[in-house]
Amino acid sequence: MLSASTNSLAQNRDEIDSVMIRSIYDEVLSNGDIYNNLRSLTKDIGHRLSGSPQASEAMVWGANLLEKYGADTVFVMPVIVPSWTRNNIATATAYMSDGRQIPLHITALGGSVGTPNNSPIRSKIVIVKHLNDLDTMPEAKDKIVLFNRAMDPVLINTGSAYGGANDQRGGGAIAAAKAGAIGSLVRSMTHSLDTLPHTGAMRYEDGVKKIPSAAISTVDARMIAKLYKEDPELEIEFTLNCKALPDVVQGNVIGEWQGSELPNEIITLGGHLDSWDIGEGAHDDGAGIVHTIETLRLLKAVGYTPRRTIRFVLFINEENGNRGGIRYAETASEEYTAGENVYVAAMESDAGGFSPRGFNLDAPDEHYELFKSWQSLFEPYDLYHFKKGWSGVDIGPLKRHGHRPFMVGLKPDGQRYFDFHHSSQDVFENVHKRELELGAGAMASIIMLIDKHLPSPSYE
Amino acid sequence: MLSASTNSLAQNRDEIDSVMIRSIYDEVLSNGDIYNNLRSLTKDIGHRLSGSPQASEAMVWGANLLEKYGADTVFVMPVIVPSWTRNNIATATAYMSDGRQIPLHITALGGSVGTPNNSPIRSKIVIVKHLNDLDTMPEAKDKIVLFNRAMDPVLINTGSAYGGANDQRGGGAIAAAKAGAIGSLVRSMTHSLDTLPHTGAMRYEDGVKKIPSAAISTVDARMIAKLYKEDPELEIEFTLNCKALPDVVQGNVIGEWQGSELPNEIITLGGHLDSWDIGEGAHDDGAGIVHTIETLRLLKAVGYTPRRTIRFVLFINEENGNRGGIRYAETASEEYTAGENVYVAAMESDAGGFSPRGFNLDAPDEHYELFKSWQSLFEPYDLYHFKKGWSGVDIGPLKRHGHRPFMVGLKPDGQRYFDFHHSSQDVFENVHKRELELGAGAMASIIMLIDKHLPSPSYE
Repeated sequence: MLSASTNSLAQNRDEIDSVMIRSIYDEVLSNGDIYNNLRSLTKDIGHRLSGSPQASEAMVWGANLLEKYGADTVFVMPVIVPSWTRNNIATATAYMSDGRQIPLHITALGGSVGTPNNSPIRSKIVIVKHLNDLDTMPEAKDKIVLFNRAMDPVLINTGSAYGGANDQRGGGAIAAAKAGAIGSLVRSMTHSLDTLPHTGAMRYEDGVKKIPSAAISTVDARMIAKLYKEDPELEIEFTLNCKALPDVVQGNVIGEWQGSELPNEIITLGGHLDSWDIGEGAHDDGAGIVHTIETLRLLKAVGYTPRRTIRFVLFINEENGNRGGIRYAETASEEYTAGENVYVAAMESDAGGFSPRGFNLDAPDEHYELFKSWQSLFEPYDLYHFKKGWSGVDIGPLKRHGHRPFMVGLKPDGQRYFDFHHSSQDVFENVHKRELELGAGAMASIIMLIDKHLPSPSYE
Repeated sequence: MLSASTNSLAQNRDEIDSVMIRSIYDEVLSNGDIYNNLRSLTKDIGHRLSGSPQASEAMVWGANLLEKYGADTVFVMPVIVPSWTRNNIATATAYMSDGRQIPLHITALGGSVGTPNNSPIRSKIVIVKHLNDLDTMPEAKDKIVLFNRAMDPVLINTGSAYGGANDQRGGGAIAAAKAGAIGSLVRSMTHSLDTLPHTGAMRYEDGVKKIPSAAISTVDARMIAKLYKEDPELEIEFTLNCKALPDVVQGNVIGEWQGSELPNEIITLGGHLDSWDIGEGAHDDGAGIVHTIETLRLLKAVGYTPRRTIRFVLFINEENGNRGGIRYAETASEEYTAGENVYVAAMESDAGGFSPRGFNLDAPDEHYELFKSWQSLFEPYDLYHFKKGWSGVDIGPLKRHGHRPFMVGLKPDGQRYFDFHHSSQDVFENVHKRELELGAGAMASIIMLIDKHLPSPSYE
């Protein structure tokens, strides 16, 4: 009898959840504000690199929306962020031995120094596929290195293909400088064969010369590799006038919705407000920002009362430092240590505004069964991916916080993401209204389930 | 012991299947011809309505490719198809009582008559949402009817939303004529708010006056509905010079690959070669055509030897008559009755070239378990949708054939499909290379599984 009654309670619980989820989806698909909010972020403000005036503008924009949609408190958690300007020069030319000159499509990698005195550098080249190829390549000295390893096309998960290639972008300049090279060019991180350079963060290392580093389009990288086989004496010249600027105080924008039963248990959800400084940061991560804000609007619209306190966080500085995410986790840690708040769960949307496929669970194994039990609630919405995986960069540092939160990442379809990622094509027009809305429906629904059903840490 | 051995056999079978599927996907993602084949179909030939010279050209194009990729026999199954021309005039204007004139975006629905003498018709309008609204609307007499029921945005499956709205397009002209109207305009079948008219098939009924019928863009339909509230005297004028032409002999193009063990058991897979006569028929159904052709290439490339005979069918006339599908099923029926061949399975791709989500099974319940048992093989490729559902229009008539085949429809993500469907935007540029390739991977893989594991009818 007990078991029958438990079953019927569970069934009843599922029915209530399923009705709530249906009203969330009805609301977003019929009356969603999310698409217009993305239009406003991308068109009224545009791209918004940490430290830029646009990032400050976006902070005000986000705070206003969180207030408009009824957050109990909206505040800024100050963060000192790096500042860097791409500036206005990024040109490159290939010079063939036969006198031909071929213009190339490049853009500075984020954080790169400019070329010396903002003047052209020119040299013969070496082409490598792996950083450590340079360990045994003395001929790289005084040359420009082209890192030309493509993203692996056979990996279904394009994020894995990206992860398998972006050591070239992050560490290429260091490896090239150690080999004595004067500059580095990195094949853009995209499956797409196009003439767009895709930017992204790069690093320097203390004690290693800082050499200028740029992304080159996939079409150009392929062409250079082909030309080089015929003409290994070919030279490349490039010029960059990007440079670092002094740090700036900006911050994470936070809207808080007080919990009715467990106000000291915090659920965090967010995306990042900063973007690269080309395109409009529409998929990366305007989508995550408007997903987050729309989740607040949706849960209010369907009359939900949260048990826990929910924090809607517009993180700063994901792209080149993650100082917003780190600062947020430090605060969580302080509050935990002081016995004030426990950050029980966190969710991030930072994989684009595409048709959602499900969620990644980034949590200890003991939570998997609960997470997996929600899958059937989402099947009517074509969400089937309920697997262990990556949650997000911004919420990542919370893992090193006192209490390990239940963490989830929204997983949209990823096939188109790297076509646009960090390029001039990451614009509003490349985000699809219904796909964006479905992402917000998914996010609001799982936040509700987490709030309702995740056991409190003391019961674990 | 028996059970353990059965388990290990099953496991072994799954491992072999899983290795084969991995090589199919590797091949299509590394060396796929499919995207270039779609480019050739859409750019070298373009749209290809049944009866048009382009449809004949496409038949030759398809036969050549099937031959190139090693079909044992390639032949045409002749089909007499309807022919109709949109011609060059489709204009419309709204005339407001205050003298304003507003140009509207329309295009003829497929099969419509032109306006009388190809001259403008002009009248006041009535606006309805359902065909039977006209039953009690004597004021529709001598007017133009605007059918303005939108596709339901809350349905996750956009195909269902389409199915719930397209009675207006198919039957609107009949209902309007019965009410004495002189013309009919139908809100385009798309969720997208844009200025593109989306065409599609419409019908007439014997004994009911044939009145001209056109699709009007969603933006215009919405605007007219708004203006009408302020100004119910507004008039619309429109002109069409489309017309029916004599029937033409074209046909289904069929590539046959002989089975090694069960050559009289036929597996059919296909899409439709014809398209509407605006845009390029890229998603509808260029994608299905190149999925089909690539499946032949892929199965040959990975060294597969089919047990059954596989027929790769480029159907004719899906859009406005389905005479190709009907003719094919008649042949199947004749061969079955004569004891020659049993058509054991059929598969269709006619839902676009988007990121695949899984498959619909359109078969008696007894097959569901086998179908569902394949799901885990496809999880590494993000395919989770293994449900009962719709297979396709072209293979549909096979259901009425002597032996009821095991039928499957490829199910791609459907959120973007109706943005392009039957419009000028259904062009190559709106198909994504990797998404298209993944569809072919899915299709080739499940055809292999069907060939290997579907029990023969006599064992059923």
